[in-house]
Amino acid sequence: MDVSHLLARRINQTQPSFIHEIFKVMGNPEVISFAGGLPNPDYFPFDELGQAAQAVFARGDRSVLQYANTKGFLPLREWIVAQYKAKSHLDIDVDDVLITTGSQQGLDLIGKVFLNQGDTLLMEEPGYLGAIQAFEMYEPTIRGVPIHADKLDTKALDALAGQAKFFYTVPNYQNPTGFSTQDSEKREIAEIIRARQIFLIEDDPYGEISFGAPNYTHYRQFIPEQTVLLGSFSKIISPGMRLGWVIAPKPVIAAIEQAKQAVDLHSNYLMQAILAEYLQHNDVQAHISTIGAQYKKQCDYLAARLEKSAIFKGLKVSQPRGGMFLWAKLPTGQSGDDLLPFAIAEKVIYVPGSAFSIERDLSACLRLNFSNADTAQIEKGVERLERAYATYLAQLPQASAQTAELTNN
Amino acid sequence: MDVSHLLARRINQTQPSFIHEIFKVMGNPEVISFAGGLPNPDYFPFDELGQAAQAVFARGDRSVLQYANTKGFLPLREWIVAQYKAKSHLDIDVDDVLITTGSQQGLDLIGKVFLNQGDTLLMEEPGYLGAIQAFEMYEPTIRGVPIHADKLDTKALDALAGQAKFFYTVPNYQNPTGFSTQDSEKREIAEIIRARQIFLIEDDPYGEISFGAPNYTHYRQFIPEQTVLLGSFSKIISPGMRLGWVIAPKPVIAAIEQAKQAVDLHSNYLMQAILAEYLQHNDVQAHISTIGAQYKKQCDYLAARLEKSAIFKGLKVSQPRGGMFLWAKLPTGQSGDDLLPFAIAEKVIYVPGSAFSIERDLSACLRLNFSNADTAQIEKGVERLERAYATYLAQLPQASAQTAELTNN
Repeated sequence: MDVSHLLARRINQTQPSFIHEIFKVMGNPEVISFAGGLPNPDYFPFDELGQAAQAVFARGDRSVLQYANTKGFLPLREWIVAQYKAKSHLDIDVDDVLITTGSQQGLDLIGKVFLNQGDTLLMEEPGYLGAIQAFEMYEPTIRGVPIHADKLDTKALDALAGQAKFFYTVPNYQNPTGFSTQDSEKREIAEIIRARQIFLIEDDPYGEISFGAPNYTHYRQFIPEQTVLLGSFSKIISPGMRLGWVIAPKPVIAAIEQAKQAVDLHSNYLMQAILAEYLQHNDVQAHISTIGAQYKKQCDYLAARLEKSAIFKGLKVSQPRGGMFLWAKLPTGQSGDDLLPFAIAEKVIYVPGSAFSIERDLSACLRLNFSNADTAQIEKGVERLERAYATYLAQLPQASAQTAELTNN
Repeated sequence: MDVSHLLARRINQTQPSFIHEIFKVMGNPEVISFAGGLPNPDYFPFDELGQAAQAVFARGDRSVLQYANTKGFLPLREWIVAQYKAKSHLDIDVDDVLITTGSQQGLDLIGKVFLNQGDTLLMEEPGYLGAIQAFEMYEPTIRGVPIHADKLDTKALDALAGQAKFFYTVPNYQNPTGFSTQDSEKREIAEIIRARQIFLIEDDPYGEISFGAPNYTHYRQFIPEQTVLLGSFSKIISPGMRLGWVIAPKPVIAAIEQAKQAVDLHSNYLMQAILAEYLQHNDVQAHISTIGAQYKKQCDYLAARLEKSAIFKGLKVSQPRGGMFLWAKLPTGQSGDDLLPFAIAEKVIYVPGSAFSIERDLSACLRLNFSNADTAQIEKGVERLERAYATYLAQLPQASAQTAELTNN
């Protein structure tokens, strides 16, 4: 039976073909991947979580296996509140916090709570693909607010904000660019949000994965009534357990709770209890610092290796101070989309910039993940990329290869 | 800030006030609840799950903590496929199965995959409240197909099916009525679905919780290309772990996978690994039989106690052969909505039939859960209900109390 007429419009939209190409080879162990966004499993607190699981079962409290409240396991919410109080002096309590099935679910719930079909939302551009995918399910109009030279175009934000329901931003070590918003910019952005009476969605999964001192300034400090703050345990503990959180002002958290009840009632309670147990009995901050220090090594190696590459002499590479991604730009006239098949042929993959495009042409860009590979693998991956790039350049029309060289900025 | 104009229409709809009244007292330990749908925690395989967790951690495979594939942990999907092959001879493979965050998420994903705003869907009426809530988020038109005298009105189904995208049904021990669809009826319903070229959503969380031999006939046997089958571990193992599944024909499962990726990437992987470990090393069928036998005792006690009650002599009570719910009907002219405040005053609660209404007046009905109370508690609960009912009757206008008595059918 042809079912396409029975499916909703939101499903029948097709994805760009390069996403399929990447998915096809992703499971191949011979392929070196700069494409994913996987944390390094070496830094999962595997044994400690095992001990926490044992402790939870030893307690004998069967309620962790029962239906439970939608907002989530209280000790876990208490831990989250205590963190924000200590680090950012946020004026929040446990009722402001709801546990989500990863922060991806937070994005879906925000779509559900705010977006009617055709509503406008704003996102920084390049924008996080997972957020684009979550929001697009609600058939909104997405407008991109460009990041120029590592600074958000706040004029564009102000011009667009009047028609929008919210502005979505990843303030720390953004996915895909690695870009971070400075505190002075945050104040400026908050003022625009306040004046325009819309919401700001602050998605902060990477803030703790910092190569130096983390920035604990949150929009919630400036515009508490208009901020929805998303956090995640995926990057600091483990993504497989699918636990994140959302913090929002009272009327919004009530709406999110109602939506979550319709969506999955509540997130895995046993897992929440195990995680809370782990958090209470381990030096989490030391654990997170280890991750940051390791990722810094991996990032530095990748960035330096690309910069000293003769073949990649035209490539511009971002300098993130945390997170999991480098953003690279090919010389004008060249295309990360077109380079990809050559990379796949060499058994290395990345995500083309076009995947993060909303309104603008980002085809000259590449997102390179550095968190899930040691330096030996990074070395091997860059060598493959170099070969792919050389082959790609060789088949470019002479003119565009030269133009590229000349106009490279 | 007043945010109501920024919230989506789907959120601003208000719930009936009695739902709030029930929620208010639900946490009170002095209240006896026939209202929820909680399994009895005495029959959670708590120690066995603890052993399974230990075994998973002992294996040392860190991939259970990593991002993983959207469809779910392969050994868990294999177990599900093996069950359906053995019990129902279903022609399915692991690619047809996707693990959900409880079957509530299956309902949300079905809404996402099938429903544009304004689309029509059909549900048996009385209908499952959780499904109504999940689907309503997509702003459809919901039409009720009535269950009359323990039989679905197939004429009404046929008349409405032409305009609908799908028909939603709980075939075994339905929530809220306890009603089960006979195989001959299933064939008749399947023929209508086939002729009308729409989908059938078979939501089967209770099928295994049977007081006799379970019925393993599934719509998938009759109309494989048009059936989406939902199952759940909530009633047979534990609801707190939030794991269920959906089985659908290829184009639909592909759409559901795309939707789930936008919604939460995948369900908790560590939990899936623990559950698969438990299922592989325990006599699950014996465990499920124990639950069925215990619930039968609780159901029989509640039904018999209500039937021999002099005060409740006008009450008609359903006779489920499995599941977790009794459906009771007050004499004509009386109202389960109006009785509720008297019940709450006596510290006993149930869900009024109106909660399960789509187009019809179900205010004479009550849904009584029997799974989460032992017979002593049931006895106490019924005594409180009797007092509440007596007080309720005493304040009814003489005429309607008498009419009620006379027209009671």
